[in-house]
Amino acid sequence: MARVVVDVMLKPEILDPQGQAVQRALPRLGFQGISDVRQGKRFELEVDGPVDAAALARIHELAETFLANTVIEDFVVKVEEGQETRKAEEAAK
Amino acid sequence: MARVVVDVMLKPEILDPQGQAVQRALPRLGFQGISDVRQGKRFELEVDGPVDAAALARIHELAETFLANTVIEDFVVKVEEGQETRKAEEAAK
Repeated sequence: MARVVVDVMLKPEILDPQGQAVQRALPRLGFQGISDVRQGKRFELEVDGPVDAAALARIHELAETFLANTVIEDFVVKVEEGQETRKAEEAAK
Repeated sequence: MARVVVDVMLKPEILDPQGQAVQRALPRLGFQGISDVRQGKRFELEVDGPVDAAALARIHELAETFLANTVIEDFVVKVEEGQETRKAEEAAK
C-alpha cells in the first residue's frame, strides 16, 4: 500500500488571512525573521495496489475536481514511500 | 530567502472525521481504491537569512509551541529549495 500526498495551497496572488494571522503573531511570541506564512491543506491518501501512471492520473483528477478549488488554489501530487513517511513521523515525536 | 515547510497531521491514533468524510465521499464520486484519507495542515514559512541549524531549531520550537497541538498532532519540518517549489507549483497549474 502506497501513500500519495496532495498538498493544496492558495495561489500566490490570493490573500491568505490565516497565514497572515500566524505571521503577525510570531514576533509577539518571540520568533523573528519569518517574512511570510502561507497556510494550506495536506491530504494523505492510502492507495490500494500499485501507484502507476494510471493511478496517479486518477488522483490528479480527484485532487483537481474535489480536493482543491482550482480557481483560487494550486495543488501538488506526490508519491511517498510508506517507510520514509513513518520514519519522518517518528522523528517528529 | 528560503522556504521551510511544516506539515501538521493528526496522530495516527486520533480520529480524523475530516479525512473520513473525504474518504467516504470518494466512491460516490467515482474514485475507487483509496482505503484511507487523513487531512492535515501545511504551513509554508519564508525565512529571512540562511536556514542553518539554529534557524531550524527555532522553527522546530515554533512548530511545537504554536503551529501544532502536540497532544493530538505530529509535525514534520522540511527545508524546501525555492526553485524546486516554484517548479512543482508550475507543474500543478
